[in-house]
Amino acid sequence: MGQRHYIEKNIYYHDTDCGGVVYYARYLEHLEEGRTEYCRARGISVKGLADAGTYFVVASLQMNYKGPARYQDTLKIATQVEKLGRSSLVFLQEVLRGEELLVESHTTWVCVGKDFKPKAIPGDIRSVFERDAKEAGT
Amino acid sequence: MGQRHYIEKNIYYHDTDCGGVVYYARYLEHLEEGRTEYCRARGISVKGLADAGTYFVVASLQMNYKGPARYQDTLKIATQVEKLGRSSLVFLQEVLRGEELLVESHTTWVCVGKDFKPKAIPGDIRSVFERDAKEAGT
Amino acid sequence: MGQRHYIEKNIYYHDTDCGGVVYYARYLEHLEEGRTEYCRARGISVKGLADAGTYFVVASLQMNYKGPARYQDTLKIATQVEKLGRSSLVFLQEVLRGEELLVESHTTWVCVGKDFKPKAIPGDIRSVFERDAKEAGT
Amino acid sequence: MGQRHYIEKNIYYHDTDCGGVVYYARYLEHLEEGRTEYCRARGISVKGLADAGTYFVVASLQMNYKGPARYQDTLKIATQVEKLGRSSLVFLQEVLRGEELLVESHTTWVCVGKDFKPKAIPGDIRSVFERDAKEAGT
Repeated sequence: MGQRHYIEKNIYYHDTDCGGVVYYARYLEHLEEGRTEYCRARGISVKGLADAGTYFVVASLQMNYKGPARYQDTLKIATQVEKLGRSSLVFLQEVLRGEELLVESHTTWVCVGKDFKPKAIPGDIRSVFERDAKEAGT
Repeated sequence: MGQRHYIEKNIYYHDTDCGGVVYYARYLEHLEEGRTEYCRARGISVKGLADAGTYFVVASLQMNYKGPARYQDTLKIATQVEKLGRSSLVFLQEVLRGEELLVESHTTWVCVGKDFKPKAIPGDIRSVFERDAKEAGT
Repeated sequence: MGQRHYIEKNIYYHDTDCGGVVYYARYLEHLEEGRTEYCRARGISVKGLADAGTYFVVASLQMNYKGPARYQDTLKIATQVEKLGRSSLVFLQEVLRGEELLVESHTTWVCVGKDFKPKAIPGDIRSVFERDAKEAGT
Repeated sequence: MGQRHYIEKNIYYHDTDCGGVVYYARYLEHLEEGRTEYCRARGISVKGLADAGTYFVVASLQMNYKGPARYQDTLKIATQVEKLGRSSLVFLQEVLRGEELLVESHTTWVCVGKDFKPKAIPGDIRSVFERDAKEAGT
């Protein structure tokens, strides 16, 4: 399924806690990086949108932690569009170590203007998400 | 409802991002502090449990972001037990600014041993959670 | 010496790393909190200044790590003005566990405008720093 | 000077604060990554050493902040050995945006055992640092 986008993350001390594993909030940073690089790879500039007064904010988040990652693991963050609405979309993201699924996440992005009020996703970006969502089989 | 436990958090630069608001992953640190202080207030030592080979790990997490917090806000983190199972429990937590609800969260803790395998919550701790869960009306 | 200002910090999982101790960068967040609360206690609003176009930015930093802090330690952050110049000041800060000195830090703040160029510290704030610096014996 | 080692870092929301720039503590995470990748590139496994009871801990740190980095900047972290002692070494590290120097840092690593007491740097690793330090002209 070519519509998944991958980045690679090495795990450093700053990702871990004294339980010996990656701290549960840190994955949210990795997931942000995954979504940003997905957009960049599709020609969507998050910064360009922000400069033009269009922001995507995280409205909700579901995290399922299935196994711990550890210091100096190399992880893959897989990102794909799961659902697409008029002013929102849901990303399905996975944190993988080799073939092993460590974290599964569903993140809802809402498109807002400078007033933080929802607005329709601009057409050109929408068509990018739409193509990926369709090919993802949703 | 006396079973809710509160801590207060001042917001500093390190909590925020260049969107001008508190970064979405940072609340998970505030929520960890809320759960830890809830336990401490109930006489449960997370560290003591860990030293004795009993850990509570976050197995899943639902975050609903309803409004942004900003630099130098003073927030309240409300923590209560929502559900109690044999080897797991769910916390309902809210991030409030005055009366305004900014974030709502459901966090599932699973009780595990040193091998990271689920085990029954020890009886004395269980009775604390049980009492709070009952009085919370769930 | 009454001119030192103290805050208390509990240490949580999010402060630590898999070496079992507080991560070296985390203290910089505690030190930010110490400087901010010092200012607040002296009636100086960092946010008010920023809204008026006056910012204090960290220009340099010296950290000396003398001993590790650990999960669920309660630390004190001591903050005092060490030196005062026309457009800059140096804070001496210490991280203490009881009487034990864990970290010593010298942080140079430069006063800048919206253009990030140095400017003289506004007179009313200056007099606050001056009084504290003098009484600190520098 | 071939002895400098470089990594590249993209800047994300989680690196920044509401001042619109990269938060001053975040660079310490980038610098940790730079030192770890320098070691990896030289065949030194920080994790392997830790497993064998040899740790390098940061004893002191000097940071000079010369200019701000911003969201979606791409930075380079340059790492080289500046000084080498019996049980310690100093890294000179720079954060660069293109040719522009944003941050300069000197970090002292002390080699310690499980008891956190200084010990001589093991010979095989020492010779790696030595070669790099010499060629760096120190």
